Amino acid sequence: MSITIYIWYLISIEKINEFNIDILNKLDNLYNRSIKEGFMEKKKMGKKPNMFPFPVTIVGANYKCKPNYMTIAFAGVVNMNPGMIALGVNAKHVTTRGIYENKTFSINFPNEEMVKVTDYIGINSGKTVEKSKLFENFYGQLKNAPMIKECPVNIECRVYKTIQDIGSDDIVIGEIIETYAGTDFITHGEIDIEKVKPITFSWKGYYSTGNFIGKAWEIGKNYNKD
Amino acid sequence: MSITIYIWYLISIEKINEFNIDILNKLDNLYNRSIKEGFMEKKKMGKKPNMFPFPVTIVGANYKCKPNYMTIAFAGVVNMNPGMIALGVNAKHVTTRGIYENKTFSINFPNEEMVKVTDYIGINSGKTVEKSKLFENFYGQLKNAPMIKECPVNIECRVYKTIQDIGSDDIVIGEIIETYAGTDFITHGEIDIEKVKPITFSWKGYYSTGNFIGKAWEIGKNYNKD
Repeated sequence: MSITIYIWYLISIEKINEFNIDILNKLDNLYNRSIKEGFMEKKKMGKKPNMFPFPVTIVGANYKCKPNYMTIAFAGVVNMNPGMIALGVNAKHVTTRGIYENKTFSINFPNEEMVKVTDYIGINSGKTVEKSKLFENFYGQLKNAPMIKECPVNIECRVYKTIQDIGSDDIVIGEIIETYAGTDFITHGEIDIEKVKPITFSWKGYYSTGNFIGKAWEIGKNYNKD
Repeated sequence: MSITIYIWYLISIEKINEFNIDILNKLDNLYNRSIKEGFMEKKKMGKKPNMFPFPVTIVGANYKCKPNYMTIAFAGVVNMNPGMIALGVNAKHVTTRGIYENKTFSINFPNEEMVKVTDYIGINSGKTVEKSKLFENFYGQLKNAPMIKECPVNIECRVYKTIQDIGSDDIVIGEIIETYAGTDFITHGEIDIEKVKPITFSWKGYYSTGNFIGKAWEIGKNYNKD
């Protein structure tokens, strides 16, 4: 808009009749400034929680001795050593009741191919759908945190702490007891995200994992701050 | 491997001399089973914390009245209403001291173009590098949680609870007070992840966000569990 006005201004003062490097530079600057303004101009977006992006996990727990699962994007690592993961879980969900029953749970990472069943688990309650039959379940060290064999990576956790009655969700903090990965998803002894192909979530939908863009603790070494 | 042995077996019993659909089918099944085994066969990977993928955030806090920032992948939403985010933060970091000083902090989401400076912030301590000069800082409702104008999305939080002396990191749970987004990153009134282009992290490195693969609470509706 401001560019158009500027051009009209230039025409009106008869400056645009001759080819003028100076004018073109000014136009360029105006354009760059408008780009920067749209980037930098902030708008208040409210209190709806966001993560860019959310991870997509399937949390598992036994409820009345049977595996149940729920799809959860409210999850994050919160401690390196001992490894801990915090979840935000609705207390009414069957899987949440299972977590409170056994004080254990699992976190399973589905991959792109599992996006439909992942969403299906999120849509349907364990009260109406028999989720223990959706997958091949297995148990690890804790014996009562059910895990999904079809998921490339599984983590079993013991409940470290819960924070309840704080709003729509309870906070469950779990200590990582063991991690399991399918042998197809390991490169040189480490779980390889490029083989796992995990799903991410934003309120707009599910997204795939993109491309490698740099090594951590490395790519920033040659950042020139000036 | 098992396919090779099977071929030798077939040769030895002279079955492979004739073209045999049945043999080819058996080979196919063996191959498919070996694929499935590699997928389903699990290996213990220990207690190192993982998220597939981790988000990449730059957490900000004022320390002695000056903005400081640290790069954090240990972050996740843990409550919908009121919106809450949990962080795992090293107590020795300057930004962490700032969080304890003011009981406020910000979460800033860098995009792909900011990957170098994001890593730079993660590598270098506020004790040796003047991080307040790296960006155009701004303040919101809380007045003392510094935010980064160059980041597409910023969230300001008030500390709701901290859990200390539990290991290498402290857990800080913040209540979301306000979210800010650059006007360039909004589509139909919502923050648009496809415009934000956030970075994700795994121990292997930084990754871009991939492609849209489906709508949540929608794509699973037609999942056929049989």
